[in-house]
Amino acid sequence: MTDDAGGDAFERVTSEVAERVDPGSEERERLRAVADTLVERARRAATERCPDADVLRVGSTARNTWISGDRDIDVFVRFPTGLDRETLERYGLAVGHETLPEGREEYAEHPYVSGEFEGFDVDVVPCFRVESATETRSAVDRTPFHTRYLQERLDDELASEIRLAKGFLKGVGIYGSDLRTRGFGGYLTELLVCAYGGFRELCEAAADWQPPVELDPEGHGRESFADPLVVIDPTDPERNVAAVCSAESVARFQHHARDLLADPRAELFEPDDLGPLSAEAVAGHVERRGTTPLALSFPAPDLVDDQLYPQLRKSLAGIARELEDRGFDVLRTATFAAEDAVLLVELAVASLPAVERHEGPPVAVRSHAEGFYDAYADEPAAYGPYVEGGRYVVEREREFTSARAFLESDRLFDVALGAHVETALEEDYDLLVGEDLAALADPFGAELARYFDPSP
Amino acid sequence: MTDDAGGDAFERVTSEVAERVDPGSEERERLRAVADTLVERARRAATERCPDADVLRVGSTARNTWISGDRDIDVFVRFPTGLDRETLERYGLAVGHETLPEGREEYAEHPYVSGEFEGFDVDVVPCFRVESATETRSAVDRTPFHTRYLQERLDDELASEIRLAKGFLKGVGIYGSDLRTRGFGGYLTELLVCAYGGFRELCEAAADWQPPVELDPEGHGRESFADPLVVIDPTDPERNVAAVCSAESVARFQHHARDLLADPRAELFEPDDLGPLSAEAVAGHVERRGTTPLALSFPAPDLVDDQLYPQLRKSLAGIARELEDRGFDVLRTATFAAEDAVLLVELAVASLPAVERHEGPPVAVRSHAEGFYDAYADEPAAYGPYVEGGRYVVEREREFTSARAFLESDRLFDVALGAHVETALEEDYDLLVGEDLAALADPFGAELARYFDPSP
Repeated sequence: MTDDAGGDAFERVTSEVAERVDPGSEERERLRAVADTLVERARRAATERCPDADVLRVGSTARNTWISGDRDIDVFVRFPTGLDRETLERYGLAVGHETLPEGREEYAEHPYVSGEFEGFDVDVVPCFRVESATETRSAVDRTPFHTRYLQERLDDELASEIRLAKGFLKGVGIYGSDLRTRGFGGYLTELLVCAYGGFRELCEAAADWQPPVELDPEGHGRESFADPLVVIDPTDPERNVAAVCSAESVARFQHHARDLLADPRAELFEPDDLGPLSAEAVAGHVERRGTTPLALSFPAPDLVDDQLYPQLRKSLAGIARELEDRGFDVLRTATFAAEDAVLLVELAVASLPAVERHEGPPVAVRSHAEGFYDAYADEPAAYGPYVEGGRYVVEREREFTSARAFLESDRLFDVALGAHVETALEEDYDLLVGEDLAALADPFGAELARYFDPSP
Repeated sequence: MTDDAGGDAFERVTSEVAERVDPGSEERERLRAVADTLVERARRAATERCPDADVLRVGSTARNTWISGDRDIDVFVRFPTGLDRETLERYGLAVGHETLPEGREEYAEHPYVSGEFEGFDVDVVPCFRVESATETRSAVDRTPFHTRYLQERLDDELASEIRLAKGFLKGVGIYGSDLRTRGFGGYLTELLVCAYGGFRELCEAAADWQPPVELDPEGHGRESFADPLVVIDPTDPERNVAAVCSAESVARFQHHARDLLADPRAELFEPDDLGPLSAEAVAGHVERRGTTPLALSFPAPDLVDDQLYPQLRKSLAGIARELEDRGFDVLRTATFAAEDAVLLVELAVASLPAVERHEGPPVAVRSHAEGFYDAYADEPAAYGPYVEGGRYVVEREREFTSARAFLESDRLFDVALGAHVETALEEDYDLLVGEDLAALADPFGAELARYFDPSP
């Protein structure tokens, strides 16, 4: 397809998608009315307690960049910095409960109140009204600055481009700065579209990105970061807005941006729906692949996703590394969580001989060499030491000849596991081996469908 | 053991060994008498054909450095350089046959005659009488220079030290510059003892060698070599006398020199005699180790050892590398030869899943990445490509899921094999797997004993 033909197709596709993602006037009206009610309630409750408080709407529904159908309203209640933290938290919760009588308390950096109101998901969040984003005491204090920065720069056309970008990132599965997704958050997406001047321009740039990619919209140029994507926060020179965006998410965006440019189609803006795999289908994949999957399954620790997923990933990486160090060959890993959490390691090699090769120092390095030789020379179970090339080599008894035996042993707890995962595993866990993986089809059929049909 | 006590013990042990390795006066007398006869016969036969020819004895029996019981007499017949090569070879063989009426023709760089005479193993070898060792036309032309160089420097005491060194290297199994042993040849051993001033001094130096070790007795200092041990030939600055000495032989010498110094004992001067393993014992080792040995067995190509062993080693290394590249895990390899030749690879992992992980380029490297993705995207048997870290990964169908199937297939011949080994394998071979290795106990019981009880 030529650039020109592609250009036409790109515009046709994005116009079609815009119809879906741009909220209509009715949706806008309704949202405004509900939001006004909530802001007024919160203002009254806040100024009653602290006359100097004010109330702001933040987030995409405040910035006209939400995707049609999103129903998040974020109401921020700002208190003067003179207030102590404890009072702010107390006032904040009281305002939240008055605004959302049926709301429940949640805890991020401050406690806040979250609830449903006339069909919208509403958060009422207290924060300090600091002078600039660099003086924030917690992450939420920064949010009003982001909203103000973008409100000053966005017109209807850019807002529409942002909606395309969000729709695309959602379709691809990398929208969100939460620690499960480690993708592109809303603020990051809005900054990227602003920086490149549009969705298509962002795709064209991303297709040729050579990470690390650094953008610095306000030219602060102060800090340097080791992340694959660096977007210096216009309101805080010391912060990389893309800090949680993983190398994998960056690469996946590059892949899909190229795909969209080469062959524009609306389905890329919709998540793949593979449908859950049946137990039989899972067993069929395991048999066809000839691998040995091993899955630790245990009740998921009671943590929010932003705490749970890092712990699961850390535990999974630790187990995979330990298995590799012990000679087992890891083909792929995955972690799933619902009521139970699953750590899945799929092994190409799951059983090994009774002996393992262990290379010692070069014979020429006398003190090390003598220590090594003496350590093994009288070991009755060892073959050797002998000399190969210029080094000592010994074939010593292997502690675990099967990965299963290792995962069933206490040595599992020598691995660096996430703290709550370790506690949960100490309590109890099931170990599913080989075609027993089929037992996970309920409730992880969708996750296993993606696992056995992986795509970028 | 303190140095002093060790010193005493070292002297006691070497005196005891010297009794065994130093030839007595009767043996010397007898050797001299036989050698004189042979030289006289050869001289007559040579000068009849070419009045300008002369005859020399070379090798350890000529230099008084042979070990008691060695029965090699080397008679070199030197012809003037004016002679053409063909005539030299014709004259050489004629002189050989006249000297050793029952001798047979052998072929190294020139043909020569080899045979038994009054209980001695005799070679009659023609060469050119060149002006200096640097002008040699073939390796044998150099030999007379070596003998002359050493004869000028050796006294009875140094000759006795040389015999200890040879006895020790034989005991350890690294004496010989042939391409099967790749150890320390006679000339090299004599130069080393001369350079360090004695056997004990050589051991003390070797214990602390940091390869590459370079000695240059005549301070030629012209060439540089990549070998672990470099001893510049005093008679030829462009030659490393230790060129065939492998890193393994150097390291083994270091190990045993330390052992002898730390705990001097006469048994180190005698080869270990492990006794051959029975078929049952071989099967027992295979079972205990839990590995998968695979042995290719075929009629040994009709080659001298110096041609056969390099070809066997090249073939073995090629096969091991290919198996590793295909994901099989090689624990150890060995090659044996008698009437049949054996290439043995002992695998820790001999069977693998139907899929293999294949890492592609980083997604950011656009042209490579697009090529990789396109190559696999429509491959029905492949899982993926997907993105891991910043790279594409695909799980593709594995060509061979068992090492046995690979070794039974024609793809074996894609490996870089030694030429004659390849021909022999094309003809036919047996593949012994696992405990079938026991079938090799006859005739390779001694080799397998060493294999299953490896030592430095």
